[in-house]
Amino acid sequence: MTTTVHEALSSSPWKGRPRPTTTAGWLDRAADVAGILATDAVERDRTQAVPTAEVQLLKDAGLVTLLGPVEHGGAGETWETAYQVIREIASGDGSIGQLIGYHYLWAWAVRLVGTPDQIAAVEELYTTNDFFFGGAVNPRDNDLTITEDGDELVYNGRKSFSTGSKISDLTVLEGVLEGTEKHVFAIVPTQQDGIAFHDDWDNLGQRLTESGGVTITDVRIPWAAAAGYVDKEPVELTYGTLNLPAIQLVFANFYLGIAQGGLKAGTAYTRKNTRAWPYGGDNKESASEEWYVLEGYGRLQSQVWAAEALADAAGAEISGLLHAEREALTPEERGHAAVRIAAVKQLTTDVALEVGTKIYELTGARATSSSVGLDIYWRNARTHTLHDPVAYKRREVGEYALLGQLPEPSWYT
Amino acid sequence: MTTTVHEALSSSPWKGRPRPTTTAGWLDRAADVAGILATDAVERDRTQAVPTAEVQLLKDAGLVTLLGPVEHGGAGETWETAYQVIREIASGDGSIGQLIGYHYLWAWAVRLVGTPDQIAAVEELYTTNDFFFGGAVNPRDNDLTITEDGDELVYNGRKSFSTGSKISDLTVLEGVLEGTEKHVFAIVPTQQDGIAFHDDWDNLGQRLTESGGVTITDVRIPWAAAAGYVDKEPVELTYGTLNLPAIQLVFANFYLGIAQGGLKAGTAYTRKNTRAWPYGGDNKESASEEWYVLEGYGRLQSQVWAAEALADAAGAEISGLLHAEREALTPEERGHAAVRIAAVKQLTTDVALEVGTKIYELTGARATSSSVGLDIYWRNARTHTLHDPVAYKRREVGEYALLGQLPEPSWYT
Amino acid sequence: MTTTVHEALSSSPWKGRPRPTTTAGWLDRAADVAGILATDAVERDRTQAVPTAEVQLLKDAGLVTLLGPVEHGGAGETWETAYQVIREIASGDGSIGQLIGYHYLWAWAVRLVGTPDQIAAVEELYTTNDFFFGGAVNPRDNDLTITEDGDELVYNGRKSFSTGSKISDLTVLEGVLEGTEKHVFAIVPTQQDGIAFHDDWDNLGQRLTESGGVTITDVRIPWAAAAGYVDKEPVELTYGTLNLPAIQLVFANFYLGIAQGGLKAGTAYTRKNTRAWPYGGDNKESASEEWYVLEGYGRLQSQVWAAEALADAAGAEISGLLHAEREALTPEERGHAAVRIAAVKQLTTDVALEVGTKIYELTGARATSSSVGLDIYWRNARTHTLHDPVAYKRREVGEYALLGQLPEPSWYT
Amino acid sequence: MTTTVHEALSSSPWKGRPRPTTTAGWLDRAADVAGILATDAVERDRTQAVPTAEVQLLKDAGLVTLLGPVEHGGAGETWETAYQVIREIASGDGSIGQLIGYHYLWAWAVRLVGTPDQIAAVEELYTTNDFFFGGAVNPRDNDLTITEDGDELVYNGRKSFSTGSKISDLTVLEGVLEGTEKHVFAIVPTQQDGIAFHDDWDNLGQRLTESGGVTITDVRIPWAAAAGYVDKEPVELTYGTLNLPAIQLVFANFYLGIAQGGLKAGTAYTRKNTRAWPYGGDNKESASEEWYVLEGYGRLQSQVWAAEALADAAGAEISGLLHAEREALTPEERGHAAVRIAAVKQLTTDVALEVGTKIYELTGARATSSSVGLDIYWRNARTHTLHDPVAYKRREVGEYALLGQLPEPSWYT
Repeated sequence: MTTTVHEALSSSPWKGRPRPTTTAGWLDRAADVAGILATDAVERDRTQAVPTAEVQLLKDAGLVTLLGPVEHGGAGETWETAYQVIREIASGDGSIGQLIGYHYLWAWAVRLVGTPDQIAAVEELYTTNDFFFGGAVNPRDNDLTITEDGDELVYNGRKSFSTGSKISDLTVLEGVLEGTEKHVFAIVPTQQDGIAFHDDWDNLGQRLTESGGVTITDVRIPWAAAAGYVDKEPVELTYGTLNLPAIQLVFANFYLGIAQGGLKAGTAYTRKNTRAWPYGGDNKESASEEWYVLEGYGRLQSQVWAAEALADAAGAEISGLLHAEREALTPEERGHAAVRIAAVKQLTTDVALEVGTKIYELTGARATSSSVGLDIYWRNARTHTLHDPVAYKRREVGEYALLGQLPEPSWYT
Repeated sequence: MTTTVHEALSSSPWKGRPRPTTTAGWLDRAADVAGILATDAVERDRTQAVPTAEVQLLKDAGLVTLLGPVEHGGAGETWETAYQVIREIASGDGSIGQLIGYHYLWAWAVRLVGTPDQIAAVEELYTTNDFFFGGAVNPRDNDLTITEDGDELVYNGRKSFSTGSKISDLTVLEGVLEGTEKHVFAIVPTQQDGIAFHDDWDNLGQRLTESGGVTITDVRIPWAAAAGYVDKEPVELTYGTLNLPAIQLVFANFYLGIAQGGLKAGTAYTRKNTRAWPYGGDNKESASEEWYVLEGYGRLQSQVWAAEALADAAGAEISGLLHAEREALTPEERGHAAVRIAAVKQLTTDVALEVGTKIYELTGARATSSSVGLDIYWRNARTHTLHDPVAYKRREVGEYALLGQLPEPSWYT
Repeated sequence: MTTTVHEALSSSPWKGRPRPTTTAGWLDRAADVAGILATDAVERDRTQAVPTAEVQLLKDAGLVTLLGPVEHGGAGETWETAYQVIREIASGDGSIGQLIGYHYLWAWAVRLVGTPDQIAAVEELYTTNDFFFGGAVNPRDNDLTITEDGDELVYNGRKSFSTGSKISDLTVLEGVLEGTEKHVFAIVPTQQDGIAFHDDWDNLGQRLTESGGVTITDVRIPWAAAAGYVDKEPVELTYGTLNLPAIQLVFANFYLGIAQGGLKAGTAYTRKNTRAWPYGGDNKESASEEWYVLEGYGRLQSQVWAAEALADAAGAEISGLLHAEREALTPEERGHAAVRIAAVKQLTTDVALEVGTKIYELTGARATSSSVGLDIYWRNARTHTLHDPVAYKRREVGEYALLGQLPEPSWYT
Repeated sequence: MTTTVHEALSSSPWKGRPRPTTTAGWLDRAADVAGILATDAVERDRTQAVPTAEVQLLKDAGLVTLLGPVEHGGAGETWETAYQVIREIASGDGSIGQLIGYHYLWAWAVRLVGTPDQIAAVEELYTTNDFFFGGAVNPRDNDLTITEDGDELVYNGRKSFSTGSKISDLTVLEGVLEGTEKHVFAIVPTQQDGIAFHDDWDNLGQRLTESGGVTITDVRIPWAAAAGYVDKEPVELTYGTLNLPAIQLVFANFYLGIAQGGLKAGTAYTRKNTRAWPYGGDNKESASEEWYVLEGYGRLQSQVWAAEALADAAGAEISGLLHAEREALTPEERGHAAVRIAAVKQLTTDVALEVGTKIYELTGARATSSSVGLDIYWRNARTHTLHDPVAYKRREVGEYALLGQLPEPSWYT
């Protein structure tokens, strides 16, 4: 696949063709998109243009409504599929893997905390229109305040990070109602005067995620649209606390995709370009026959497979919870899924960093040329894996292994 | 569970109770057996008595015929279940996990290479009688020779390793027909004059596996019982080459069981015995609250989970092949299963050794007392994981990752 | 060198020959002793006889008075040499390396806290008589109490660990003076009715160190012999707090010796016994030519060398402090030496465990035979490296690297 | 120190002040230069301007003639000092550390292979004039050919890599005399028409080293200036083969400097900017008190110290050989130094990569902002550590550890 994102958009490879109808079909579709993204991922990372075209590609491919209800034109797939799609997309471009992953969670936010009516309305809205979600919900910034104005809520303030919001159709806001401790989520149109992006995301990696800050000025929603509020009071379900493990597994899956992408790029380079190393008496004709090259790739591949297997197992577990009756979820089920996902996060963090660094030893000195751009994997992995400290994830799993304790729901566990 | 093996045998916990009828039931049964084995695993390892009682326990629990046909009283379970049972048993006692695992493969050997009639006969024989298998099939010892004597084949020679044979009812022999390159497998009664055990297994770990040498003198089978031969010529199927990945995954599963057992023993000790470490100004009341203890167990548990997930995925894959039509198996399917299992072997090797060494750092200095016996996990893992060099397993996976090559069937791949 | 300890004792290899007069000469002497110890280290470990002969060997070789004043017949060497001797001895037998290392510190204890008269008396006593020291000074057991009886102090109580005391001539006691917080050290003849050994040291490794418990009943010393007391009041010097880094570097050096011994035993086995591994198309004639074997040993050797270099640098540093004017020592100098030694401890712990486990992968499956006994390195390393948790040593170094803080003198830092 | 390179040049901090007269003084001087370089290392890396100012700074500081004869105004220091200066400079700026390190070796090249007259001439020339060296000597490019033209040799061809040559006064050329296998080194003025730089060095790291290609057209030297040739025939000394270990230890020292720089930058950031992580019930007030942060830095610092200690030991060893009589050097001495340096290279490679990746976990997510620029350490380390595969260095050390073999002199060992 050697089509760039812009070539793909103009050639509309999926126009007029039926959408996939099976999970396998959707995974193939995701693989096609990943192939396109991989073609010019390094160039796009460098120019760091706003990823409008990339999001359009996701829409054209039908991936944006993967979780949307079939009755409104969505694919009606499960989270188990969604996690694999995120991983696949990230194997082509880590940033876009993050965008689609965050989108899936923002699109699901209304299910996590909303009322049945709100769920129905939001899902119809976004599925019918193929809308893409962004969000301004960084939990360590408590600086969106909400005031009441009659039947409306008015959001004001700023968030340091607002992933994907810039190129989204809908933005999820989170703020605290003045004079209370009540957190209120709202889903609002992104294109409005009250939402101003700082365009200040300039970081080591995941450079196309538009994760910069945002200023919110007098953004209004009707009280009735306050997600999960009935008569101005929150309806609290354990189900809502699935947001944390669900998003953490989104993270883990795009870390894994980054690892897979790095392994793919590394092996391709070695096969094509790496020269055999001269070593008196024990030389090989080609680098691909060399002992240390084969063993090195074998080690990385094995680690990637193990992380995949654990991610899949955890994906099946939480997917089962996310698609079951909301009221049925027990804290124990939620806790078990969360602690397993804490393990996935560690493993995928380790393997993504390991692949990002070690592929260079298997491709050789000339692969450090900027024209090759293999550093994108390390940079992407290194950047987002710091979202919350992995040492604390180890501790969480340790509390379970040693004491049988499950993590308390919080913004990070 | 604080019953020892001998107490369990005399109290016959399963006598008169119905056998499990579901996979979950069999796994529970295996867990019960593991709990009994764990109770005095350290003591039994030290005395290194012939594990007759342990094998009887496996028989009493119904585990010996787990894979046997239902029509003859077997459980008719799949290899997917068998691998989990091996792991569970090994979590209680690594040696016995090895014995049951080898048994499952010896019992399946006739399916791998035999004719339909041979399969029917052997499965009925062993299932009906609850027979336990051992074997003398070490591939790097080419020293059993076979001569023809009319309608019979006569085996003579010796093998350095003959795991489980000593305490078995049936022994699988492997030799080379004189003047040919033909390997011929035979299943013979263990209790006969021609089979003499050297009783020389005295190694670092897996001490209860009776893996010592054996001398074979004039052991006879009818030509008709030569597994897989029709009219004195071998019938060769790709299916027969599943023996290698199948046994390698047996290995991996008891390594994993050893890791699980170590983690269980370590956490139990820490909770009960480990004292908090004094550290000026940042002390904890108990060791179980200490940062490094929690993080350490979290790291180990996460690695164990990842290895489990990969083992389960590979188990499902090869189980599917083992239970499908023998003729349908393609070399590609066999090769893919084999390369995935090569990865499982690495991961489980690493995690078993890591657990075996690190649990000491989490239990503390007093846990080195011989009365505790935590070294059994490292010793068991260290011993069998050397069966064939793990570096070559990494290379195999590397050949696949880099070049798309699948391992050639051999005695080790 | 294939002489056992008992053969060496009866043939008296050093009798009538002049003692070394240079540092290099003493290191050669230590290497000779290590060679003898290595010959039957595994057998002696298994019988676990009281190491009387081993200590006699150290005496015969002149190593017991290595640090003793020249005027009384000692070698007058520095701690820098002593640390290397400990390491060398431990490369032959980890237990005996621990014994000689502890001895050096007990013999120096009077210098750490004693008055000039006490120092002169003790050094003359032990050097002239070639006395070996043991000690009952475990800091986490506060259960030796001291009562005054006129001009005498009377010790009563028990210690759980009393390394080397059993086979020593002199024992260092530590207790707390009743009704005070004063710790008082005393050096007493080991052979007396008031000292009764529990003979209960039965642990995973370092089995010949006689580290079992001891009961002290009415052991008396004159007040004047209370180390570091003048007129019944302690004279406190920063110099006395060198005990901790000094003994921690003793530990690190015998860990390193264990690693060196393991590497030596592993390479010897591989050269002589390990068979080449068959691997289609890329075989070697001998295991010693195999890529993974060579790389594996190279990795271990490099790590050992790095740990040695750091241990030597730290040894030179603290040796300089130990041999300088006692009053001149500043807390900063002490603290810097201590934090560097905390790093040495980590590195040597890691490398000793790594060697202990990995040599098996380079020697192969048959090396697990009990007749080989390669597990002694892992067992010895694993046992003593738990003396105090290495994670806290990392933290100490981190406090220095991040905050410039030096460890507060305590029983463990 | 917050002076940038250009500010330092214009303020001439060392003008009119006496040069250091002791090794300690030179190391302090190097530390001052490193402090200046560190101030704007990230900015200079990004603009990637030709490092003319940086080289001038090295000249102003007197470091360029550190190894030059005292009689011509050089410092007359040893290689032991030079290695530490390289490390120190690299701690401020990895590229400049590489430049000064390569310079030292090019400046020494005439000693390695030249005649006494050539040595005298070159050392006077460069020391008197404070000349900086570059080189075009990449051993895997055999594409500079030499033709004879009467008493002159004429160089033509191209080299892919020519580190530092662009900003040097003198360039070392290496070519093969047409029709022979003779390699001839020449030292020529860099500023001449026959030397044209490709200005094509655009790589992941070490971006200021001007390591791009060069085309050589009719560059002439008198036969008499052909380094190491007498009457047109080479004089071969084992001493000349020290070039390889000497330059490999140059590499190792700037890797180590990069690690030190990373650790310094990471700790500074953590102290100043990293926020404490919220964790229910076990929080700290500041990140600098957090368990995992302290332990993490302690682990890195300990590894850095070990690599330093080994680098220092190897530096002392080879420095002794480099400054001894050229004729006295034995292949065994050379080989031992080389194999020890092979170990240093591994350790420093590992620690530089580890620091480059792990500091992010200790500084946190916000440290990925491009304005921080902590990635320079990983990029610099990752780039040059690929110069030759570290796996082969492990093998070299393994050949010594297992077989007692010393590396054969070659372009890489």
